[in-house]
Amino acid sequence: MTYPTYFEAFDAKQMLEDYPIGDPLWSRFKGMSRDELRSIQNERFLNVMARGWQVPFYQRHWGAAGVEPGDIQSLDDITKLPTYSKSDLMKSLAEYPPIGDFSGLESYTAETRPPIIFHTTSGTTGTPQPLVFGAYSREVQNLLLGRTYRFQGMKPGSTVQSCYGHGMINGGHYVRESVIHFTNAMFLSAGTGIETRSAQQVSLMRDFKTNVLVGFADYIKRLADVARESGIIPGEDIKIDMISGHFGMESREVLADAWGGPELFDWYGIGDTGCISAEGPDHDGLYIWEDAHYVEILHPETNEALYGEGVFGNQVVTCLFKNDIYPIIRYNSNDVTEIMPFANSLDLPFRRTRGFMGRSDNMVKLRGINIYPQGIGPILEENSAFAGDYICTVERDANGRDEMTVRLESHNSEAATAKAFATLLKQRLGIEMNVELNAPGSLAAVTGIEHRQKPIRLIDNRFKK
Amino acid sequence: MTYPTYFEAFDAKQMLEDYPIGDPLWSRFKGMSRDELRSIQNERFLNVMARGWQVPFYQRHWGAAGVEPGDIQSLDDITKLPTYSKSDLMKSLAEYPPIGDFSGLESYTAETRPPIIFHTTSGTTGTPQPLVFGAYSREVQNLLLGRTYRFQGMKPGSTVQSCYGHGMINGGHYVRESVIHFTNAMFLSAGTGIETRSAQQVSLMRDFKTNVLVGFADYIKRLADVARESGIIPGEDIKIDMISGHFGMESREVLADAWGGPELFDWYGIGDTGCISAEGPDHDGLYIWEDAHYVEILHPETNEALYGEGVFGNQVVTCLFKNDIYPIIRYNSNDVTEIMPFANSLDLPFRRTRGFMGRSDNMVKLRGINIYPQGIGPILEENSAFAGDYICTVERDANGRDEMTVRLESHNSEAATAKAFATLLKQRLGIEMNVELNAPGSLAAVTGIEHRQKPIRLIDNRFKK
Repeated sequence: MTYPTYFEAFDAKQMLEDYPIGDPLWSRFKGMSRDELRSIQNERFLNVMARGWQVPFYQRHWGAAGVEPGDIQSLDDITKLPTYSKSDLMKSLAEYPPIGDFSGLESYTAETRPPIIFHTTSGTTGTPQPLVFGAYSREVQNLLLGRTYRFQGMKPGSTVQSCYGHGMINGGHYVRESVIHFTNAMFLSAGTGIETRSAQQVSLMRDFKTNVLVGFADYIKRLADVARESGIIPGEDIKIDMISGHFGMESREVLADAWGGPELFDWYGIGDTGCISAEGPDHDGLYIWEDAHYVEILHPETNEALYGEGVFGNQVVTCLFKNDIYPIIRYNSNDVTEIMPFANSLDLPFRRTRGFMGRSDNMVKLRGINIYPQGIGPILEENSAFAGDYICTVERDANGRDEMTVRLESHNSEAATAKAFATLLKQRLGIEMNVELNAPGSLAAVTGIEHRQKPIRLIDNRFKK
Repeated sequence: MTYPTYFEAFDAKQMLEDYPIGDPLWSRFKGMSRDELRSIQNERFLNVMARGWQVPFYQRHWGAAGVEPGDIQSLDDITKLPTYSKSDLMKSLAEYPPIGDFSGLESYTAETRPPIIFHTTSGTTGTPQPLVFGAYSREVQNLLLGRTYRFQGMKPGSTVQSCYGHGMINGGHYVRESVIHFTNAMFLSAGTGIETRSAQQVSLMRDFKTNVLVGFADYIKRLADVARESGIIPGEDIKIDMISGHFGMESREVLADAWGGPELFDWYGIGDTGCISAEGPDHDGLYIWEDAHYVEILHPETNEALYGEGVFGNQVVTCLFKNDIYPIIRYNSNDVTEIMPFANSLDLPFRRTRGFMGRSDNMVKLRGINIYPQGIGPILEENSAFAGDYICTVERDANGRDEMTVRLESHNSEAATAKAFATLLKQRLGIEMNVELNAPGSLAAVTGIEHRQKPIRLIDNRFKK
């Protein structure tokens, strides 16, 4: 039987032409006008819309909102389309098992099906969500993360160790493909602490002279402690030049100090879309790869599209390159961020965000104040007794009053320390919370810091019977 | 900075032309003469030799044996080259850390280094061994495993679940790339029981309608038990059509029965080389992909090259496509097999082997009789009390006499059962062994059946102080 396989399904050289990386990134985009960029976006958007209308999920979703193909003539019309979010995908999965009706595979028979890449999310916010990619869109995603890493300084001579998980989880495979296919760096796919024990991870770093770490900040921070416990000195026995991960609002000082002062870089992406925006060499916000993604900011409560600088709200993403399997058109990530002033020191035509600032569906409204549990870590780090791991629990009492308890690991268990943390949180967030001190390492089983992609930071008990 | 990345480093369409898969495999090779095949092999061998002379490891190794470039004019001269084995690679790694001097990366600067793929073995026979691949040779290896799977019946409509491990280990990544890049099947990268818990593995099979399982037989067999324990009936709730793994001499009946009668296929390969030979639809031995690998059989003790049908010994491999990073020229796998009669029902020009028959460096000589611990499993399966897992221990007593104890999991602990196993082993192997019965599941911690790529089958205590 003959059918086009992965390498026959797209033209890799054309892809590199359309989505430049390395030096060509600069020669293509430096000084480009917003109008020229908009025209590239518009053309790619219309191509993706054509694919969208072939997919049952969008036919249903757009049809229910009364949208017809003729209504969308250009990118200017995008707000006529309804947004959707993870809950719509989970509903599609439940109604059309096992992989939903958003991949448009119905237009193929089992025998003619094009190459697909199938993974799941790590399940940070519940059941792991299946993720389906086509060959072309997968490699553009890989390219965009490769572009990010090279933008941040990764080189063919780098030795990169990854703490992103494998197995069914997309993260580790995605990062591995990106580094191998687009940076020529040597890549160590160590994975989570379950795949490669933490002590073994630091031995690998020492033995193979790892100089770049990629993964989630919490675990990378923990590995510095593990190194010290093994008698390996970060900064001396292991010389890390660069850490690229996901920092959002977190304080970076503690992490940089733990590893002897490497340069830190943030990037933002979602399992479905891949890398959307990345911190650059100017360390001044995250540049949105707007040749590949059209990002809107919606009001977190009214869902109204917001324009301009300084707007804060949910990031809604349209992937301008996903025209093969599952197109992504106005996906509401529920991840909140803020758009920064446009002018940037690199003379790039891309808008910048402040990165991940919390999840609007993980936000807890406590007596009128919005609390993002992921934002509490950086505050705790201001007290040197903080030992790195924490989790927030919300309860509703008989009077309907919500209370949050922050359980945190502390180097001591003194009442005065607990009080100091409570005071700090009150100062920063303007609200009283309970503080419970735990021994270092004791919360790992609850937060999953050793084996999850992202630790759990919130347990919401308010709606339990 | 600009340099050729993965997709620019080789011509994928030319590769598919040179190493056909699917229908073109048959049109190219069916009825081809051995002479024509030999001429293809010769041309590729000389190309690989040219790369070999650039690599310090081979310069040292061949130089020490007094071989000069002019000595090797054709494939006929290959026996003038010394073989090497894993111990030579480990020595190279120790002398030239961290990745040895066999990859020939010395000819590049850190800045111009071509794309490389770096992994390790799972460490079945000791310390994990680093494995380094170039982009082209990696994809030819992937292609050859894709060729194998399609030869065995994998289709774009298949849903394939893999139990090969990820993290630093090559296996899972290799199999994933092969299936995704060359078969268009839907691939579930579940990994070992550590990456995806066994109960979760069977849920995935049921939910995503997995119909092909790939991995090591021992763990796949165990998953059938786990399914039953979870109330999921293999053959009814999960319909497996095909299992492709590594069987060697093992009885296949137990595995096929456990999964409701799927078709079973064997294939053989090594971490460094990828897939070398594969069982085909005729289930009559493993066809060596001789357009890509030149396989010799050496006498296990004298290392003399053996020719003809029916010869038994160590498989020595030369990869005819590895001309980019680490060339493999006369690698002694220490895996023993037997060459089968040439005539085959598929009219292919390839010789066939009986597959993996044991490791010559894991062979135990007990009072003059060669025992391969991996070969004991199939014998134990003849007694229905056998519960699946086992390990052999060898001790030397004060008189210098070697004794082997077979510790096996049994459904009952009766003395008569132990005696029945001992009698069975005596009958089949011609030698007395001790038998120790263990409760089902109790040996997992010693054999590593849940988390290792291949379980440990031998503990050799003879040379301990």
